[in-house]
Amino acid sequence: MFETNNLDKQSCSVDSAISRYLDEIPECGLEFENIRVEESLNRILYEDVIIKMDQPAFDKALIDGYAVKSSDIFHASESKPIKLQIIEETGIEKGEKISIASNQAVKISKGEFLPENADSIISEDCVVREKENISVVRSICPGVNIAKKGEDLLGGEVFIKKNRKIRPQDIGGIIGIGYRQVKVFKKPVITIIPTGNELVSIDAEPKVNQIISSNGYVLKGFVEQLGGTAVISSIVKDDLGQVKSAISKALDVSNLVLVSGGCSSGSKDYTLKAVKELENSRIIANEVDMRPGSHILLAFVGNKPVIGLPGHPVSSMTSFHVFGKPVLKKLTGTPRSLLQDRKDTIKLDAFLAKKISSPEGKEDYIRVRLIEDKNGKISAYPYTGQSSFLSTLVKSHGIVKIPAECTGLYQGDRVEVFLF
Amino acid sequence: MFETNNLDKQSCSVDSAISRYLDEIPECGLEFENIRVEESLNRILYEDVIIKMDQPAFDKALIDGYAVKSSDIFHASESKPIKLQIIEETGIEKGEKISIASNQAVKISKGEFLPENADSIISEDCVVREKENISVVRSICPGVNIAKKGEDLLGGEVFIKKNRKIRPQDIGGIIGIGYRQVKVFKKPVITIIPTGNELVSIDAEPKVNQIISSNGYVLKGFVEQLGGTAVISSIVKDDLGQVKSAISKALDVSNLVLVSGGCSSGSKDYTLKAVKELENSRIIANEVDMRPGSHILLAFVGNKPVIGLPGHPVSSMTSFHVFGKPVLKKLTGTPRSLLQDRKDTIKLDAFLAKKISSPEGKEDYIRVRLIEDKNGKISAYPYTGQSSFLSTLVKSHGIVKIPAECTGLYQGDRVEVFLF
Repeated sequence: MFETNNLDKQSCSVDSAISRYLDEIPECGLEFENIRVEESLNRILYEDVIIKMDQPAFDKALIDGYAVKSSDIFHASESKPIKLQIIEETGIEKGEKISIASNQAVKISKGEFLPENADSIISEDCVVREKENISVVRSICPGVNIAKKGEDLLGGEVFIKKNRKIRPQDIGGIIGIGYRQVKVFKKPVITIIPTGNELVSIDAEPKVNQIISSNGYVLKGFVEQLGGTAVISSIVKDDLGQVKSAISKALDVSNLVLVSGGCSSGSKDYTLKAVKELENSRIIANEVDMRPGSHILLAFVGNKPVIGLPGHPVSSMTSFHVFGKPVLKKLTGTPRSLLQDRKDTIKLDAFLAKKISSPEGKEDYIRVRLIEDKNGKISAYPYTGQSSFLSTLVKSHGIVKIPAECTGLYQGDRVEVFLF
Repeated sequence: MFETNNLDKQSCSVDSAISRYLDEIPECGLEFENIRVEESLNRILYEDVIIKMDQPAFDKALIDGYAVKSSDIFHASESKPIKLQIIEETGIEKGEKISIASNQAVKISKGEFLPENADSIISEDCVVREKENISVVRSICPGVNIAKKGEDLLGGEVFIKKNRKIRPQDIGGIIGIGYRQVKVFKKPVITIIPTGNELVSIDAEPKVNQIISSNGYVLKGFVEQLGGTAVISSIVKDDLGQVKSAISKALDVSNLVLVSGGCSSGSKDYTLKAVKELENSRIIANEVDMRPGSHILLAFVGNKPVIGLPGHPVSSMTSFHVFGKPVLKKLTGTPRSLLQDRKDTIKLDAFLAKKISSPEGKEDYIRVRLIEDKNGKISAYPYTGQSSFLSTLVKSHGIVKIPAECTGLYQGDRVEVFLF
């Protein structure tokens, strides 16, 4: 059995930490809400969308032209045109069911009912109109330019499977089959708690030894990109009581709490202690074998996840990508499709422009800046600067992950870059 | 010279149409606005963000520990610890500049000022505290665990270049260097005009020969994904006067007008006529060699682009991707970076699961559904169904483009799929 009590001083691998943590995040119990279809872009479907009725609901014309019996004009050609009589043209607009006899035709517009006995639509380019008649100069196969009842969609079948992240065209489709509302997963609420005596709010003027609190806004942006609702709490001082109370309050209104800072083992780091003192708390991991961002806290209070992230900007972002992102995906309704994963995690191949060494036993996340040369070759320039540096945060285009057992990469090595 | 008068009956290639159209869209004249940095996610920078002052603004500690002169402890080891006297610890919190003499140290927290004469921070793990002294058991190199003034950022230099689409980490960086506001391109306003006698509004109950107007919502979703503000106008009947007046009104308040439907050459198609009758209008292309979506209208009224899109859902979406997307990118502030392009246009390689044939002389856009097998091989199943079909719209994962000169692809061919 895994003993949580001894864990907080013990380090573990990234994979083991994340899989143990995800396993315990409740799959079911996610809530849903009904929203208007046209407001559902990027939301996650809570249940399958079922086709209400056959589409088309009737055999219909796909182009403007004349509805005909194809057998009537089987031998039509430029040299031997076949004459058809045009019958009534008004009822069709009103949705009345009309029918044609042999050697008759009906002028029809795109989308209208196919008259009974007609089996195809011949376009105006292939006929010569003469008052009440047309001369058809070409033959046509049955079924051409019409859509048969139910050919597009069959009533009762699944139109879109649940868990899809709704795209613009899905909105059009769902409206098209007659729904006004759609059932989607509720957006999870994520409260972000910035901690640190050195932090001041964005509207304050920082003294020389103070820092404007900015990690919260970075995390908020990522949370929103992933489909959550982010709330940034007031800045909390490095004080056990205050950190504890902030987490406790946040838990009341959140599905996930992110504590920014205070996760290291310094004298002013209270995140671990605060979580431990909360009722029903469990620590899943407190230190992981990665760089930057080894000082991470993965915990639960009751069944709600609480993640402590490092305070340095680069470590904070890296840890969020490694741990926060998969948790958030699960909380938003786990869209699992191959394609959604490809869209959420954009990768590209590049060639390393400079040798990098990496400590054995730690997963290393190296920020890189990408530059494409004239021939389309993409080089990745690694940043090995301090994880407190803002410059690498904005100048880097993505991350290269170096596995724990690898001690470095050579210049020219092909690397997979995760764009962010 | 290119003669616009003869053009409307003349077909042209996709590339020629789009390049002529884009060339005429005014590059300059895009407006900017100042917004709060924390609300700038996904907006496009209008000008370079300049670093206000050096960061760090002073030499500072990167970890908790003791600020020391490294030369004092050059010979320190477990067997020969070196004793340093700890001096005053309070001034440093207030931002006062203090200094150490030889064989002195100052207890310091992460982020605090480095005292004068100190050149590195030794962590608490490497010392034994004894009241007013510490015994240091390890040597340290100068510069370790400190950040020098300006090492991260140099005042006056460019922090982020203009035209970047702002990412979460960029928000953190821009706040971190002291900005509260950021200058971004104004979001262009795109009015979408649904036209067609057969259309009814989303809140109406359609009769059997009516269709709920849904293309507008699809286009709205794409416009918003691309960073525009979309407004859907009321449904307009197939009537020259009404179409003309709707376009004219939309132009007053929009940067781009998208007319959905009425672009074909049928008796009820008035988009081209309406645009032609508007003052200062110019038709750039009216028919292009592509499938689906050959009936497209690319025009200007004054210097404002007006695009007419086909009414069938699949054609509408395809034409928007081919023509609307690049226009919108230009109107939002043309983010040009390699990476942004990769993120905006997600592609993957797949193997074609079924032979497809394609007309020579037309670019063909084939919808495909992707299925990954156990070994990670992705197969693309082409949909060749009608472009009016809602089913292929929601079931397809992306598009394969077949060049005009290509007449088909074989089963097993490797294809590049543009995900949508």
